[in-house]
Amino acid sequence: MKQSLATIRQDIRDGKWTEQTAGLASGYTQANLVILPKAQAYDFLLFCQRNPKACPLLEVTDVGSAVPKLTAPDADLRFDVPKYCIYRQGKLMEEVTNIEAYWQDDFVAFLIGCSFTFEHALMDNGLKIRHIEEGRNVPMYITNIACEPSGVFHGNMVVSMRPFHAKDVVRAVEVTSRFPSVHGSPLHIGLPEQIGINNLLKPDFGDAVMVKEGEVPVFWACGVTPQSIAMSSKPELMITHAPGHMFITDMKDSHYSVL
Amino acid sequence: MKQSLATIRQDIRDGKWTEQTAGLASGYTQANLVILPKAQAYDFLLFCQRNPKACPLLEVTDVGSAVPKLTAPDADLRFDVPKYCIYRQGKLMEEVTNIEAYWQDDFVAFLIGCSFTFEHALMDNGLKIRHIEEGRNVPMYITNIACEPSGVFHGNMVVSMRPFHAKDVVRAVEVTSRFPSVHGSPLHIGLPEQIGINNLLKPDFGDAVMVKEGEVPVFWACGVTPQSIAMSSKPELMITHAPGHMFITDMKDSHYSVL
Repeated sequence: MKQSLATIRQDIRDGKWTEQTAGLASGYTQANLVILPKAQAYDFLLFCQRNPKACPLLEVTDVGSAVPKLTAPDADLRFDVPKYCIYRQGKLMEEVTNIEAYWQDDFVAFLIGCSFTFEHALMDNGLKIRHIEEGRNVPMYITNIACEPSGVFHGNMVVSMRPFHAKDVVRAVEVTSRFPSVHGSPLHIGLPEQIGINNLLKPDFGDAVMVKEGEVPVFWACGVTPQSIAMSSKPELMITHAPGHMFITDMKDSHYSVL
Repeated sequence: MKQSLATIRQDIRDGKWTEQTAGLASGYTQANLVILPKAQAYDFLLFCQRNPKACPLLEVTDVGSAVPKLTAPDADLRFDVPKYCIYRQGKLMEEVTNIEAYWQDDFVAFLIGCSFTFEHALMDNGLKIRHIEEGRNVPMYITNIACEPSGVFHGNMVVSMRPFHAKDVVRAVEVTSRFPSVHGSPLHIGLPEQIGINNLLKPDFGDAVMVKEGEVPVFWACGVTPQSIAMSSKPELMITHAPGHMFITDMKDSHYSVL
């Protein structure tokens, strides 16, 4: 039996669900989380504006508030993510299941669109997602494409890769183009070495998947980019979700389609 | 003979062109301008993120820089707009043709998408724009729709109106949906009283245009919203372009289509 969003969120809040969220609360938009003190929030907000494919913003909370009042007004971002990462000076120091003890009055939380949304749309269109078929995490790579910097934030873009049979690539572009607020259309098709990826079998994050004869690798800007940016920019303190352990909003995926 | 973008920008910079920019440098994206001191920039940047249909951001300059390095790296926002408005405490104090004397080291400039871009797309699709046919300014109305507030910035959304024959309304939605970064799809179709507009013949900005028998009024979120927000939020100092006197970027309109 499928569980309701309310039940799932309560289980996460109570620490009963600390696993990945792929496939949970199907149809509801999941989001990447970045939390920074207000002193760094302007630079990061502008970083997102300048890099909308990697960091498409769904919502930014008011200073000191853990409530995303526009996309999930009953949620609390201190508890409602299954697992969090605490970065200090760009180093992952700890993984925790709530951040009550870390919360500061000057925190700002950024919710960033996640590829789960467009993967649902691709599957609705009959396209199979290899890493889901294989039961793995999506392969992610750090590219040679520099993000547009903003203040202290700089670094290279991270992309995710999904292989498709050549005949399906056009449809994959069409379907994902309709969702600019969850990474939108692909960043690159076909020649990974042109974006600094020399070995598809060795992703920087996630798991390698098989690219079969007659298939083309298709790359999308990835919401893991902020973690990579944290590592290169080394802010004093930055809290994120743990990869794959997303925040589930009240919004339906279809809400984010522009067409 | 059509003039090049470079010639037009030089004429504006030299103060030789101080008129509206509609139809100038056809194909190049024009932008609304808002300039605020850094102290207000975070709240305004977040205001734009929360109100993307009214305030779709094309670029935000670095603090103190008048150069929009991503959309027009050779331009200077102190000179390259034909006419500027100086607002103090929400009141329009002065209109000037350059802001050299007003520029401050803590200024941040926001370039916001403009409906000229989607009007070109509508005309390319064979749809006629009434206010252009009549040689008038587009009619704009303050609605009863509250913007999502951010810090000091609050107020109601401004919309522009274009009437279309009922048979053309669907195409108008389709065409403009492809341009989310220049206001995107309409905000409302058909019943102006539902969004607080009681008399189409009395716009709050611009000129009234004829709505003929068999036509439906279609409303888009409007880049004049920031001026209206300035009036209701009363920041100490805010500089904008004068309505219709836009900044012309180096970007082509087609760049902003997501599909």
